[in-house]
Amino acid sequence: MNMRKTRVDHHLYLGAAWYPEQYPSETWIKDLEAMKDLGLDSVRVGEFAWACLEPSEENYQLNWLIEAMDLLSEYNMNCILCTPTATPPFWLSQKYPDIGYVESDGYQHKHGARQHASYNHPVFRSYSRKITKIVAEALGNHPALIAWQTDNELGSHQQRCMASYSVANWHRWLRKRYGDIDILNEEWHTVIWSQRYSRFEEVPPPYRLCYYTHNLALNVNYRRFMADAIAEFQCELTQVIRQYSDAPITHNSTELTDDWRMSRTLDFAASDMYTNNKSPTHIHFRFDSMRNLLPGVPFWTMETGCDDFIEDELYKRGWLGCYSFMNYAMGAAGLSFWPWKQQPGGAEILNKFIVHANGQPATGWQNVKEVVEVVKSLGSVLRRFRPKPAETVFVRSQVNGDYFFAEKAGGLEAHYNYAQHVHACYQTLLDLGVWRDVLYDEAFIPPCRLLFTPYLPYLSESLIERALSLVEQGTVWIAGPYSGFRTRDNAVPTDYIFGRLEERLGFKTLYQQQIGSLDVEIAGRPGRTNQLATMFEAGSSDEVIGVYTTERFDGMAWGLRRRYGKGSVYLPGTDLDTDSRHAFIRSVFEREKIALQTLPEKMTVIPLCDEDGREVTALCNWSDQLRKLPLEEVRIVTSASGVKKVGDEVIFQPRSWVVIEALQRHQLVQAEVMN
Amino acid sequence: MNMRKTRVDHHLYLGAAWYPEQYPSETWIKDLEAMKDLGLDSVRVGEFAWACLEPSEENYQLNWLIEAMDLLSEYNMNCILCTPTATPPFWLSQKYPDIGYVESDGYQHKHGARQHASYNHPVFRSYSRKITKIVAEALGNHPALIAWQTDNELGSHQQRCMASYSVANWHRWLRKRYGDIDILNEEWHTVIWSQRYSRFEEVPPPYRLCYYTHNLALNVNYRRFMADAIAEFQCELTQVIRQYSDAPITHNSTELTDDWRMSRTLDFAASDMYTNNKSPTHIHFRFDSMRNLLPGVPFWTMETGCDDFIEDELYKRGWLGCYSFMNYAMGAAGLSFWPWKQQPGGAEILNKFIVHANGQPATGWQNVKEVVEVVKSLGSVLRRFRPKPAETVFVRSQVNGDYFFAEKAGGLEAHYNYAQHVHACYQTLLDLGVWRDVLYDEAFIPPCRLLFTPYLPYLSESLIERALSLVEQGTVWIAGPYSGFRTRDNAVPTDYIFGRLEERLGFKTLYQQQIGSLDVEIAGRPGRTNQLATMFEAGSSDEVIGVYTTERFDGMAWGLRRRYGKGSVYLPGTDLDTDSRHAFIRSVFEREKIALQTLPEKMTVIPLCDEDGREVTALCNWSDQLRKLPLEEVRIVTSASGVKKVGDEVIFQPRSWVVIEALQRHQLVQAEVMN
Amino acid sequence: MNMRKTRVDHHLYLGAAWYPEQYPSETWIKDLEAMKDLGLDSVRVGEFAWACLEPSEENYQLNWLIEAMDLLSEYNMNCILCTPTATPPFWLSQKYPDIGYVESDGYQHKHGARQHASYNHPVFRSYSRKITKIVAEALGNHPALIAWQTDNELGSHQQRCMASYSVANWHRWLRKRYGDIDILNEEWHTVIWSQRYSRFEEVPPPYRLCYYTHNLALNVNYRRFMADAIAEFQCELTQVIRQYSDAPITHNSTELTDDWRMSRTLDFAASDMYTNNKSPTHIHFRFDSMRNLLPGVPFWTMETGCDDFIEDELYKRGWLGCYSFMNYAMGAAGLSFWPWKQQPGGAEILNKFIVHANGQPATGWQNVKEVVEVVKSLGSVLRRFRPKPAETVFVRSQVNGDYFFAEKAGGLEAHYNYAQHVHACYQTLLDLGVWRDVLYDEAFIPPCRLLFTPYLPYLSESLIERALSLVEQGTVWIAGPYSGFRTRDNAVPTDYIFGRLEERLGFKTLYQQQIGSLDVEIAGRPGRTNQLATMFEAGSSDEVIGVYTTERFDGMAWGLRRRYGKGSVYLPGTDLDTDSRHAFIRSVFEREKIALQTLPEKMTVIPLCDEDGREVTALCNWSDQLRKLPLEEVRIVTSASGVKKVGDEVIFQPRSWVVIEALQRHQLVQAEVMN
Repeated sequence: MNMRKTRVDHHLYLGAAWYPEQYPSETWIKDLEAMKDLGLDSVRVGEFAWACLEPSEENYQLNWLIEAMDLLSEYNMNCILCTPTATPPFWLSQKYPDIGYVESDGYQHKHGARQHASYNHPVFRSYSRKITKIVAEALGNHPALIAWQTDNELGSHQQRCMASYSVANWHRWLRKRYGDIDILNEEWHTVIWSQRYSRFEEVPPPYRLCYYTHNLALNVNYRRFMADAIAEFQCELTQVIRQYSDAPITHNSTELTDDWRMSRTLDFAASDMYTNNKSPTHIHFRFDSMRNLLPGVPFWTMETGCDDFIEDELYKRGWLGCYSFMNYAMGAAGLSFWPWKQQPGGAEILNKFIVHANGQPATGWQNVKEVVEVVKSLGSVLRRFRPKPAETVFVRSQVNGDYFFAEKAGGLEAHYNYAQHVHACYQTLLDLGVWRDVLYDEAFIPPCRLLFTPYLPYLSESLIERALSLVEQGTVWIAGPYSGFRTRDNAVPTDYIFGRLEERLGFKTLYQQQIGSLDVEIAGRPGRTNQLATMFEAGSSDEVIGVYTTERFDGMAWGLRRRYGKGSVYLPGTDLDTDSRHAFIRSVFEREKIALQTLPEKMTVIPLCDEDGREVTALCNWSDQLRKLPLEEVRIVTSASGVKKVGDEVIFQPRSWVVIEALQRHQLVQAEVMN
Repeated sequence: MNMRKTRVDHHLYLGAAWYPEQYPSETWIKDLEAMKDLGLDSVRVGEFAWACLEPSEENYQLNWLIEAMDLLSEYNMNCILCTPTATPPFWLSQKYPDIGYVESDGYQHKHGARQHASYNHPVFRSYSRKITKIVAEALGNHPALIAWQTDNELGSHQQRCMASYSVANWHRWLRKRYGDIDILNEEWHTVIWSQRYSRFEEVPPPYRLCYYTHNLALNVNYRRFMADAIAEFQCELTQVIRQYSDAPITHNSTELTDDWRMSRTLDFAASDMYTNNKSPTHIHFRFDSMRNLLPGVPFWTMETGCDDFIEDELYKRGWLGCYSFMNYAMGAAGLSFWPWKQQPGGAEILNKFIVHANGQPATGWQNVKEVVEVVKSLGSVLRRFRPKPAETVFVRSQVNGDYFFAEKAGGLEAHYNYAQHVHACYQTLLDLGVWRDVLYDEAFIPPCRLLFTPYLPYLSESLIERALSLVEQGTVWIAGPYSGFRTRDNAVPTDYIFGRLEERLGFKTLYQQQIGSLDVEIAGRPGRTNQLATMFEAGSSDEVIGVYTTERFDGMAWGLRRRYGKGSVYLPGTDLDTDSRHAFIRSVFEREKIALQTLPEKMTVIPLCDEDGREVTALCNWSDQLRKLPLEEVRIVTSASGVKKVGDEVIFQPRSWVVIEALQRHQLVQAEVMN
Repeated sequence: MNMRKTRVDHHLYLGAAWYPEQYPSETWIKDLEAMKDLGLDSVRVGEFAWACLEPSEENYQLNWLIEAMDLLSEYNMNCILCTPTATPPFWLSQKYPDIGYVESDGYQHKHGARQHASYNHPVFRSYSRKITKIVAEALGNHPALIAWQTDNELGSHQQRCMASYSVANWHRWLRKRYGDIDILNEEWHTVIWSQRYSRFEEVPPPYRLCYYTHNLALNVNYRRFMADAIAEFQCELTQVIRQYSDAPITHNSTELTDDWRMSRTLDFAASDMYTNNKSPTHIHFRFDSMRNLLPGVPFWTMETGCDDFIEDELYKRGWLGCYSFMNYAMGAAGLSFWPWKQQPGGAEILNKFIVHANGQPATGWQNVKEVVEVVKSLGSVLRRFRPKPAETVFVRSQVNGDYFFAEKAGGLEAHYNYAQHVHACYQTLLDLGVWRDVLYDEAFIPPCRLLFTPYLPYLSESLIERALSLVEQGTVWIAGPYSGFRTRDNAVPTDYIFGRLEERLGFKTLYQQQIGSLDVEIAGRPGRTNQLATMFEAGSSDEVIGVYTTERFDGMAWGLRRRYGKGSVYLPGTDLDTDSRHAFIRSVFEREKIALQTLPEKMTVIPLCDEDGREVTALCNWSDQLRKLPLEEVRIVTSASGVKKVGDEVIFQPRSWVVIEALQRHQLVQAEVMN
C-alpha cells in the first residue's frame, strides 16, 4: 500500500508516533495490540533514532528497526518512516565541533537536545544524506512503509545560523540573487548609515547589534536565505530517498515553516497542529492552507495531542472528535497523535500520551475513541466527496508577508506579529461564515468570486497581474489592508506611495504613515484604524469606502473601490479594529452580491462535493452550547450521536457534528440560520 | 569557651558581623564599647578579608586580625572566625585567569564582586586550603574564638560551572556514580533524542540550548554534582581547620543550600535568615529544619537584619523581639546581625546596619534592644527547657524534591518553584497549629504520630521502607502530594505509574497526568487540584479520600487511605488549592484522632520540655492585633512587657510573647482558643 | 553668514535633516523648492555619509556633497555640516576587526547599524580625524555653511566599552585621576570584598558579574571615564575642524549625554528633543538647561519630529506650534526636523518625515506650517527680547547626580532612575509657575533668590562654598532632597552622616537610612516620604520644617531650616510624594516671601526682557481646554490666531500662544489667575 493508492481510495488514516527504541522489544506487541484495540492503523517511527541506527561511525544497527517494521506488517499497520537527521549522534558532534549552529551573539551550540547542527554545515549535510541512504536502502521497499517524513519540524528551533560556513553560503546566495553588488546596494538602499558594500563578501549577517536594526533588506533576506538552506537540505534528503524508495515523502511543518517552499519537493503536505478548547482559528487556517499546497493530494496532520496541554483546560468530551472531524472534512487523509506512549525519560510533560509508560491507557485514550468514530463515519462520505473549491481565496505569504515586520521598533514588537494580523483578517471570514481556500502568493490562483490579500507589504508584480486579470473577468479583489507599500527587498517605492498597484490602477494616495489609531467611519458606524493609515484622494472613477473622522484628516478617504473590467478592486488603506473589519468585509460581500452564510458562532461549515458537482455539507458545533438550525429538506448523511433532526430543525449537542445533504440544491445557503 | 560548653549551658549568644579591616583600628574600641553597651556578646569576623590577610602571594598580614581578636578577648566578646575564601584576591585571579567559573553560555567570570572562582578549580582549592591553614594556625586557639565559619553562603551565587576542569570533574563524578556508561544510558533513558553515550567523557554539561531541555536526568545530576563539589570544597576547609583548632565549625547557609549535605561535616548548623513584617512561614520552616540537622546541637542564625529591607515596610515595634523569641525558642543558640556598621564604600544599601559609618546608632539599634530583652528573659528558661520533639514530622529534600522541576517547560516556570510548593504544604501545618519537626529525607525519622512527605517526586526505597515500618507501628503517613512518580534519575517508572509505592502497597492507579486544574470534592466541599492529577481505582482495602467532580473523571478517586499495620497511609494523588489542602489535612488529623491545637491566626506556639518531660509553652503573637487566650490554670514563666494574665485570660499586645507553664498537664492542648 | 552673526541678529532658523546621498541628484531641486515653499531656511547634511565620501580607503568622493551644498547656496539655504564619524565604512571595520566596542559580557560588536566602533580605539580615532579633515578642508569655507555638528548623538548607543584598548585607557585614566593606587584603594574603600589593588593595571572594568555589584566607585568612575573618552573624541574632531573652518561647532546631544562636559569645546549647544501631546516637562527641562550651557549663545534643537511617534496619538492641531513657540521663546536660535524625507530603505518608521519618498507632502507638512507661523511672529520679538535670567536656579548633575544609583539593587531599579527623580523635582517648580534656569553643578551660579539642588548625592565642596556664599548674601538654598551623603567616589562619609554640609553648618543628623516610605507631616497636612529618610535633631538655631508621624520616629524632624547670613538653608532629609513636595516648595516660597505666579495647569509662562530691562511675557496654553486669564492693562505684542483679548480677559484657544506686554510693570506677577 502506498500513498498513491491512498489518493484513490481516500482511506482515512489514524495513527501515533511510536518510538520502539525507547522500550524493550518485548513490549512492542503489547503496544501494537493496544493500537489495534483502540482503532489506530498507522505509526510514525524513526524520527530521533540516529544514535540507535549508527551508534558509532558506520556501525549501522538497523535490525531493531527492521524487526519493528516487520511486526507492523504482521499487525497490518502502516508505517511513516522518518529520517533521523534531527538528532545527530554525539560522535558526529565530537568529530566536527563546529557543527553546532551559531547565534547572532556568536554562541555556538553544542551537543544536546535537538537540531543543534547547522543546516549549512557541509559535513552535517553529507552525513545526513549518508544515514538517510542507509535507512532508505534497507527499508525503502518494506511492505509496512506508506510514506517518508524528512527530519522533524525543520527550522523551528534553528532560525538563523551565523557560523563562518553559513556566512560563506550567505555570500554565495547573495551573489546568485543579485549578480552584481551594485544591484544589491541599490535595491537595499545601502547608502543609509554608510552600509555600501564593494563585494558580496562584505555583507554581514544580522549579528547582535549595539543599536536598533540592520538594513531591513538584510534582515528579510537573511530569513529568506536560511529558509532556502533548510529547503535545500530537505531536497537533498528527498533525492536520496527517491533513489531507493517509491513511497511518497512529506514533512511535518509548524507555524514557523514556509510551507510553500518546503512542499515544492514533497509528494504530500503535512503539518503539526496541536489544539485546545479555545478558538480553532489557527486550525482552520492551517487546514485551509495545507489542502491547497499540493492540489488534489490530501494532507496529513502529523502531530496533535490526544489531550490538553498542561496550561490549558482539559479537552471537553467531544472536542477531539470535532477537531478530527474538521481535519478530515477539510481535506486531510491522516491524523497522527504525538506520542503514543509516555517517554520513559520523563521529558516533554506538556504533551499528553495515549498510554502510560507501563502500557495502561492514559486520559487521552477515551478522546482518541471519539476520533475512531469520526473516521468510521466520514470514511465512506469522503471516499466520494471532497472539500469544495471555494469562491473566496485568501492569500498569505511568509517572507513577502512579514517584510514590514523586519523592523521591530522599540516597544512595538507586539504590533508586528505577522501571524496574528493575518489570523485576525482570516477570522473575519470565519465569523462571516465564508468558505475559503488559503493560498500562498506564489501559488496559481484559480478563478474566484473574491480574492483577499491582507498584510502583504510586498505585492509582487506577478501577483498584481494575476489578480487583475481575474478581476477583469469579474473577481472582487480586496487588495489589503497593509499591502503593497514595500519593494521586493523591503524598501519604500520612491515613485508611488502605494507602490506598483497605485501606478497600475492610477488612483491617488495623499498620505501613508504609521500612526497609532485614528477614528474612521465605516458603513455608517464609527471605527478605529490600526497602525498604518493611508489617506486617498478619490478620483472620478473611485467610490469612497469610508472616511477618517479624526481632526486633521476629517473627511479624507481611508479606502477606495475601483471598478476594473467586470470586477472591482477594494483598496483598504488601513486595517481596522475587529468589529469595523467585520463591517467592512460584510459590506463588500453585500455590495458585490456574494452570498454569505452566517452561522451561529462557534459553528463551522465545510461544503463538500463530488466529481459530478453533487454536494453535501459538513457541519460542526464546537461550542459548549446546544444549537438548533432550521434545516428543512435536508437528509443526514452521517453524524455524531449528539445530532438529531427534529421536525424542520437539526439539533446539535455541544461539540457534535453532522454531514447533511440538501434535498433541494443550494437550499442550505439560502436558509436563514439562527442562534 | 567553646561550643561544646555552649551545648551544656545553653547560653544564648547575640552578635553582629564586624569588619575591623574596613575602619581604622582607632575606631575598634568605640565599636566594642557600643556593642557592650547595646548588649551584644559576640562578633563574626574575617569573611571577605583574604586580600587584607595576604595582600600578595605568601605575604601574610595577620597582625591586624590578631590585634582585633585580642581586643575582643579584652572586652570578653566571643568570636566566630570565617575562612576568607569567598573573595580570592586579585593576584590569584591574575595568576590563574581560568579561575573564574563559566556560565552555560560560555562566559567566564572575571575578578570582581564575590565567589567568582570555580569550586572545581584545583588551584583555587589549594590556595583556599593554604590561606585557611595560615589563619587556623595563627588563630585556631585564640581565647576569643568560639567557632569557625567556612566561606560565606556557599553556592548561592555560583550554581553551575561549565569550565573545562568542571566538565572533567563531572565526568569523573559520573563514572563514580554509574561505573558503566551503559548503566547511565539505561537509567537516564538516553535513547531519546539520540543522546546515547559511549563513554562518560561524552556526557555534556547542561550548556545553553537551542531548544527546550537537556535530558532531565542530566539536569538533575549536574545540580547534584555541583552540590557535591561545593560540599567537597567545604570539607577540605574543615579538615584543614581541625588540624589546628578544636573550635566547632559551621557554615551560614541560605535557602538555596542543600543543608543536609553541607552540614554532614560540620559541628553545628547555621543559616542566614532575613525577615520582614509579613508572613514568617519561611522562618518557621528554616528554624524547624535547622534544629533537626544535627540533633541535640543548637543552631545559629548567622545573619539577619536589624531593620527592614528597603523594599519592605519598617519593622514595627516588637517585631524583631518576636523574631528572636522564635529563633531561640525554636532551638537557636545564637543570633547574629549583618552588619554591625555601615560599609564605608556605600554598597549593600538593602541591608540595615546597627551603627552609622561615624559610629552613631542607626535606626535598628532600638530594635536590637528588643532582642537583648528576649535573651535575658529566655536565657534561664532555655537552660532547662528545649523544643519538644514533635509528633508530626515534615520531610523535605533538595535534589530529590525538585526532580520534576528540572523540566521548566515554556511559560510554566512559575508552577515549578519547589520551595514555594513545599512552603505551601508546610503552611497548612502552621495554619492548623501543628507542632512539627522538619527533616531531610536522608535523616533518621524517629517514631511519630504523623509523617508528611509532600513534593518528593523521588521517594527513595529507603524512605519508603523507613516510613512503612513506622506506619506498621502506628504512624499515619501522608505520602504526597506530588510524590513518588519519578526514579532516582528523574525518569518515569515503566512498571507502576505511581512508582515503587504502588508496587509496595498494591493499590491501583488509573491515570496520572500533568493537568492544569480540576474540580474535586474533599470532605463534602468543592475544591480545585493543582498540576498533577492522579486517578485511583479504590480496591476493597482502600478508603476513598475524595473524588473528582470534573466531566470525564467524575467520581474517580483523587486520593486513597490504606490501613497498614497499626497505622495508615494517605495517598493524595494531587495537590489542592489552599483551602482544600487545609480541609484535607485537618480531616486526616480528625480521622486519625491526632489532637490539633489551632490558635488564632498569626500566633505561634512552641512547646518546650525538660529532660524529665516537664513542659512549658512559648507563645508569640506576631500579629498587629491584641489577642486574648482563655488560659486557666497557667503560670507565666517569663514574658514581654506586653503580656498580662487577667483572670482566666492571657492578653497579648501586638507583637508580644510569653512562656507559660500549665498547672495541669495537657490543659493547654485541650483549651478552646478564640480570636 | 555664520553663527556669530546669528548671535547678533537673533535670526530664528528652521530646518530639517537632508540626506541628498539617499536620492538621485535630479530630485534635489524638487526638495529644495519644497523646503522653500514650506518655509525652511536650513538643512543638516552629511551625518551618516562616510562610505559615500570615502568608498574605499583614501578614495575620497566629495563632489556629490559639494554639488549639494552649492545648490543650497543657490537656494539661499543654510547648511549645518556633520562629521560622518557615526558610521565608519565597512572597509575600516574589515581592516581593523577589533574596532568594534566590547560589551560587559565580552561580545565585540561587528559592522552594522551605527556607532559600533569604540571611542577608545586609536585607529578609529585617527581615521575619524582624517575624514573630518578631508571634509573640513573641502567645505569649511563653503558659503552655505553656517555651522558644524560633530558625529551624531555621541555615546547614546555605546555607553561602555571593555575592549582591551579601552581597559588600557581606563588604567591610564585612573592613574591620572588618583596618582597613587593607595589613594584609589582608600577613596574607593576597596578593603571590602578583597578588592584591594596593588597597581592601576589590576582594576577591572565593570565586567558582567556573577552576583550583585562591583565596587560602587568603580561603577561610577567607569561611566566618568567613558564620558571623558567621548568628550576627548569630540575634542579631537573640533580641533581638526577649527584648522580649516571658522564656522561654529555644535553637537546634537540626547538625554543620556553629559551636556556640560560635551559643550565645553563647542561654540553653541544643541540637542535632539522629540515630543508628543503629553507632558512637556522634559522639554522645558532641556530647554532651560540648554539655554544655560553657553550663556549668551542661543541653542538649537537639532532634531524633533514633524508628527507623532507611532506609539503616541497624533499631534493635535496647534501642538507643534506650541512646541516651537516654547523652543524659541526659551532661547533657541534654531529648530530642525528629522528627517526631511522618508528613507528609501524603509527603516526608522517611528520617525515621521515631512515629505514622502516620492516628494509628496506627508502628514507633518501642515504641522510644520504652524512652526513657520511661530517663526514669523516671534522673529521680531526675539530680535530684542531674550529669556529673562531667573530668580530660581535649579542645579542638576550627571555623574555626580546619579552616584547613589550605581547600585541598582535587585528589584529596585525603578526607584533609581535619576532622570525621573530630577524631573519630578523640576515638575514641582513648573506646577508652581516658577521661572527658572537649570544649571550644571560645575557651572557658575549667579546671584539668585532661590537655589534648588535636589538629587545630588555628591555635593562637591566647591558647590557647597559657592552656594553658601550666595546664601550669605540672601539666597535661599534648598539643599536636597537626596543630596550630600556621598563622597566624590560614591563612598559614605565616615565622620558626618549628612557629609560635608553637616560639618559645615553644624546641624545634627540622627539617622539616615534607605527606607521604603514613611508618614510625615508637612505644613499641617499628611504626606509620605520616598526612599531615603533622614531624621534630624533640631538645635536652637534650627527651625523644623516637618516631622515624621510614623511609629518609632514620631515627632523627629525630617527637615530643618537654618538661617545663614542674610539667607537661609533648607535641609529636606527625604524626598516626598508629589503633593507633599509641592506643599513643601510652596511653603518655602511663602516663608521666604518669594513671589509665585501660579498659572492654570498646562500653561507655560516665559518672561523675556531686553537689555534695558523692559519686559514682555510669552504665554502658551498647551492644554486641550480654552483658558481665560484676567489680564488688565496688557498689550498683545504678537499671538497665534487662537488668542484674543476681550475686555479684561485674554482668551486662549487650546494650543495657542501669545506675547504680551504689561502696561504697568510687574502687574502680571501680582495678578490672580484662575482656571
